[in-house]
Amino acid sequence: MPPRDTQYLHNPTHAVDFRRFISDEYLDCLREQRAEIQASGSRAPVTTNLMLPTWNNLEQWSWAEELDVVAVDHYLDTTAPDGETHVAYGSDLTRSWAGGQPWLLMEQSANTISLDGRIAYKEPGRMLRNSLSYIAHGSQGALFFQWRASAAGSEAWHGAIVPHAGADSTSFRGACELGATLRAIGEVAAPPADGRVLDADVAILWHADGWWALENRSLPSDHLDFSAAVRSTHRALWHAGVAVDFARPGTDLSAYKLVLVPSMFTLNDAAVRALEDYVAGGGQLAVWYFSGVADENLHVVTGGYPGRLRDLLGVRVESFRPLGVDEHVELSDGLQGARWSELVHLEGARALATYVGGPLNGRPAVTAAERGPGTAYYVSTELDPASTATLLDRLMAQAGVMPVLGATPPAGVEAVRRRGAEHDYLFVLNHGATDITVRGEGYDLVGDRQTAEGVLVPGGGYLVARESTAPQWTVTVDEGAGGSR
Amino acid sequence: MPPRDTQYLHNPTHAVDFRRFISDEYLDCLREQRAEIQASGSRAPVTTNLMLPTWNNLEQWSWAEELDVVAVDHYLDTTAPDGETHVAYGSDLTRSWAGGQPWLLMEQSANTISLDGRIAYKEPGRMLRNSLSYIAHGSQGALFFQWRASAAGSEAWHGAIVPHAGADSTSFRGACELGATLRAIGEVAAPPADGRVLDADVAILWHADGWWALENRSLPSDHLDFSAAVRSTHRALWHAGVAVDFARPGTDLSAYKLVLVPSMFTLNDAAVRALEDYVAGGGQLAVWYFSGVADENLHVVTGGYPGRLRDLLGVRVESFRPLGVDEHVELSDGLQGARWSELVHLEGARALATYVGGPLNGRPAVTAAERGPGTAYYVSTELDPASTATLLDRLMAQAGVMPVLGATPPAGVEAVRRRGAEHDYLFVLNHGATDITVRGEGYDLVGDRQTAEGVLVPGGGYLVARESTAPQWTVTVDEGAGGSR
Amino acid sequence: MPPRDTQYLHNPTHAVDFRRFISDEYLDCLREQRAEIQASGSRAPVTTNLMLPTWNNLEQWSWAEELDVVAVDHYLDTTAPDGETHVAYGSDLTRSWAGGQPWLLMEQSANTISLDGRIAYKEPGRMLRNSLSYIAHGSQGALFFQWRASAAGSEAWHGAIVPHAGADSTSFRGACELGATLRAIGEVAAPPADGRVLDADVAILWHADGWWALENRSLPSDHLDFSAAVRSTHRALWHAGVAVDFARPGTDLSAYKLVLVPSMFTLNDAAVRALEDYVAGGGQLAVWYFSGVADENLHVVTGGYPGRLRDLLGVRVESFRPLGVDEHVELSDGLQGARWSELVHLEGARALATYVGGPLNGRPAVTAAERGPGTAYYVSTELDPASTATLLDRLMAQAGVMPVLGATPPAGVEAVRRRGAEHDYLFVLNHGATDITVRGEGYDLVGDRQTAEGVLVPGGGYLVARESTAPQWTVTVDEGAGGSR
Repeated sequence: MPPRDTQYLHNPTHAVDFRRFISDEYLDCLREQRAEIQASGSRAPVTTNLMLPTWNNLEQWSWAEELDVVAVDHYLDTTAPDGETHVAYGSDLTRSWAGGQPWLLMEQSANTISLDGRIAYKEPGRMLRNSLSYIAHGSQGALFFQWRASAAGSEAWHGAIVPHAGADSTSFRGACELGATLRAIGEVAAPPADGRVLDADVAILWHADGWWALENRSLPSDHLDFSAAVRSTHRALWHAGVAVDFARPGTDLSAYKLVLVPSMFTLNDAAVRALEDYVAGGGQLAVWYFSGVADENLHVVTGGYPGRLRDLLGVRVESFRPLGVDEHVELSDGLQGARWSELVHLEGARALATYVGGPLNGRPAVTAAERGPGTAYYVSTELDPASTATLLDRLMAQAGVMPVLGATPPAGVEAVRRRGAEHDYLFVLNHGATDITVRGEGYDLVGDRQTAEGVLVPGGGYLVARESTAPQWTVTVDEGAGGSR
Repeated sequence: MPPRDTQYLHNPTHAVDFRRFISDEYLDCLREQRAEIQASGSRAPVTTNLMLPTWNNLEQWSWAEELDVVAVDHYLDTTAPDGETHVAYGSDLTRSWAGGQPWLLMEQSANTISLDGRIAYKEPGRMLRNSLSYIAHGSQGALFFQWRASAAGSEAWHGAIVPHAGADSTSFRGACELGATLRAIGEVAAPPADGRVLDADVAILWHADGWWALENRSLPSDHLDFSAAVRSTHRALWHAGVAVDFARPGTDLSAYKLVLVPSMFTLNDAAVRALEDYVAGGGQLAVWYFSGVADENLHVVTGGYPGRLRDLLGVRVESFRPLGVDEHVELSDGLQGARWSELVHLEGARALATYVGGPLNGRPAVTAAERGPGTAYYVSTELDPASTATLLDRLMAQAGVMPVLGATPPAGVEAVRRRGAEHDYLFVLNHGATDITVRGEGYDLVGDRQTAEGVLVPGGGYLVARESTAPQWTVTVDEGAGGSR
Repeated sequence: MPPRDTQYLHNPTHAVDFRRFISDEYLDCLREQRAEIQASGSRAPVTTNLMLPTWNNLEQWSWAEELDVVAVDHYLDTTAPDGETHVAYGSDLTRSWAGGQPWLLMEQSANTISLDGRIAYKEPGRMLRNSLSYIAHGSQGALFFQWRASAAGSEAWHGAIVPHAGADSTSFRGACELGATLRAIGEVAAPPADGRVLDADVAILWHADGWWALENRSLPSDHLDFSAAVRSTHRALWHAGVAVDFARPGTDLSAYKLVLVPSMFTLNDAAVRALEDYVAGGGQLAVWYFSGVADENLHVVTGGYPGRLRDLLGVRVESFRPLGVDEHVELSDGLQGARWSELVHLEGARALATYVGGPLNGRPAVTAAERGPGTAYYVSTELDPASTATLLDRLMAQAGVMPVLGATPPAGVEAVRRRGAEHDYLFVLNHGATDITVRGEGYDLVGDRQTAEGVLVPGGGYLVARESTAPQWTVTVDEGAGGSR
């Protein structure tokens, strides 16, 4: 029976179970259709659209196992610079679902962003930079919906390569420029022998269950939001210029130097064991509030939160203390949190920071438990963006995680290394308005020149460089070279 | 099949078609009832209530053709002075639907305004001034819902001539005063030989299709609002003291000096031809953004906007650029817009004003195309009220359109000339708090005196004057005469 | 037929009638179940949960008549100090439904408050003080939902005596402390011979009909709110330290010195007669706007508001003038109102205060009509909290109503006298942060000591004292004794 309207509250376990069931049924439907296609003798690779980032109806890990190529739609949800971080977020998710293998951007918009009840226009160059970012993060192409804007119907105002105005348009010229660029960088598409197109030392735990579980009502706070928690963690890593994977709960994590678990309410036995094994093997693990509180049936593990990770983290949380929308908490190390706090008792861990003031004054806020060579950190509040960045910097320094360029890139500059068959490739995307110069041993595929002497990448521009075997790059901001443009 | 809930988006053409169908079905229903009445031998004139201003379910032009008298309800939606402009707006619409003939105000409220979830009270004198405004604009009377407030039921708190408190009340005394006034001015009801009770040099294009089309979702902006666009244009003309008609798309416009088309998304062949013929015959035409973009099936005309009027206007719009709710655009002539902008290419027109700053810097914003003796203007943004007034002043000056009084009236003063059988009649309604003096050759019907020496019209008061054959009026504000009251 | 969706407005009489019908049907259901239980030979007392304060589906007076013990759930809806006034409000209502007899708090939360989409935590000591307040106001106990927090299901995050963390928790220790306190004060539960556990000189008229009638739409203002009007009146009396009953319309009111009628839209014949008899017998009656306007069928009594009380109050209201959300009115005696005003004519009453400024300038706002030894007051606007307090102080002074302690208690201090079999008991609850000293002839049941020399009650603490036969108490704030804690 599906969940139905009730006289009062619903059964949260039932609600999540039903979403699992729907994902499974859809997937059976895909298998049936694939079987029919293959029965007809077709050898065409089979894929479908996993519908990033808001369509929350599939358990993506199990779907990816069934697809020859993992593919997604991705539409920006903002005109602001933060859109660039969302491109990387969607790309990292999709590549991770694909097991680190190449994937395909099946749809993007050539020119428009649907925003607050209107269409907004992408700035010149944005579509090209975004396309290169998808590719840098492992996509084998940059497809669009749609070639030609329809004159009628419900999507007449959707973006298109050829708009209503015709080919004499910024949109179409931009698509032509993208075509030329892709021709020039074609060699990046050949994958390395192991198929893994990115090297990442950091992984974030992701599971549709985490999202579904927090979409229930009757939680301690309506502000619990799995997707937002994951996204804000990923965003901080993007700004730090660090490569990131997403990891499936229960899989081997030993390849990573740092594993992050943002507000994953439910964990099953395998997921708990994988985290324990990871730390036992020397891993650095950081767990955020409201993770591991319940098993996969949404049954709370009693005796103190977070029941499933209590021993690993060395804490016992007596009660959750969600905060009002205008409330904040200060920590003893200067960091700041909101929306959530907890009454934490230390049971083996030590406090890295305590709450300052308020009903939790002096109580542990951020903790660390040494577990042999590994460490298990616990964060009991929702840190603001700057505090999240500060904490992650500390954790990455301890774990030996380095940015792609060896140093944090200038603001607005994205650097991604894509692994290839013979070479690796450095993508530098200058999303800001200020010119930069990129220097290092390599070859500018589009500019058709060596990069050792330095390549000017203007504001809004990009560089795709074939790397030498031991690349060392520097990126400098060209303050005197004309400023913004 | 009616439009139904869909899994995602609906078919906009279907949605508008269904509203046309509903209006037609209702109208068939009216015809059936009328036939039954007439079959019984009745010769009583037949009418119904076209339900101004928010009930958006009838195509009024076709309905008006079937009625012996066009009639409407009109309820103020604000206590603020802007309510007076709405009286004129509703009246001008209704008279236009009636082909310029007299019509009838079927319902108004004697004392209350339903506002933000409460009843508000009309100030003393407001009901009387409003009643005279309806009549000035062509109504043959000022009826009310209802005589006596009901003691029970869902409309117990609706306004009434006799309130719950009984006849010893401001409301009932106000109705008696209105009765005496109407007796005194009774001669104004006799129509002129041609039946047209107002002379207007300006027409605004109006069609229910325009409203229905913009009530679809999946447009480039949720803020597109036909009714608001028409209303703000009409409001600017009200403040300028100019008489206005509304025109049915496809009809002969040659009687007007200036025709305005605010955001009429769809135009059929006949409507386009009528606008072309109008300009070819020397007319001055001004078209606002998002007009003529599609045909009557909501199919966008491709090749550049606004496809159906591209040749007439001499522009080719490459893309619409709706603005965020907090965004504004500045034009080179000092005007200001919001909510909408466009990337306009000139193809025969010249730019009267360009955008200043932002992504459209230097691009045309307002254009004019000379077409023989006529001119076709295009306005590619939503001007704010002051800018709309400035633009309309320029257009009216060029077209030779004059205010009723020969000059813009003082703030808050409304002047309307109603044509009669033997004479014309000037209605001066002083909606403000400051006394004014009205001078000119005529006769004050209520005061029963000549007006040549000047008639004091106190704040909140009125004058109805039978005009001489060559009237020349002046209205002066009585600064020293006691000020506001 | 139940009320259904309509094309437009519904029938308000029908809507209220249906709610009466539902309450009656539910009550029949209770009678049936009770009959079955008793048929089986059970002699267990029968009760049910009247579901304070928001579940508005029962006519509580008729329900209370059928129950052996009147019982309610009560959950705080705020973390702020105003929660304490709501405890008293709920308690006074329930005791009044029980005819002044003891009742039972069937459910409260041990630790959490559901607030703005999150759980908030009760401060240490709050649950204990609240429990004592219920008991002071007549409850025979302080029960909880629930003993142990459930690990699963829709109420897993509901408060509990034993939380998920287990017995080693603030919650459980707090419950133990409550248990010890209740053991020490057990003697208060023995009721006096007449069964009435509180003496109150003030009564507020309450009836579910009043609430239901104002939940209709199509009233003069959407802001009419019976429950809020009653609550704000009760809150003002709480701060004044005065004992309050609620009275059923139509019952004998002669035991009270002051009777308050806040916005009771409908009154039936018996209710009107009871008010008239009360004033005729020398009672002081104060009636707020929109009371007695209609009979029990929601039929407005015409001829001037408030029709059913017009003669008693000596006023004739010509029209209601609800105010906009940002509007205020000033009265000539310095008081201030909002949301509502009225055009009042005096017909036997005299004006105690008039409106100042605005369309009602100089018109009566608050009136008094002498009716032999009694007085009937009328308040035609919604006074703000400070003005309500000022007005009630005046009325209480005139009526000879005294606070429990003989004087208004310090801010945040609640004093309640519960009548017992042999003695009366004074409960002093110090909800504030400042220490106080309570002095008077009595015995501190928990501290096990005489109170004559003074008992220090720290911020957040309490005193339950067995009183001497002629108690005289003083409460002083201990400014120098360490301040807040």
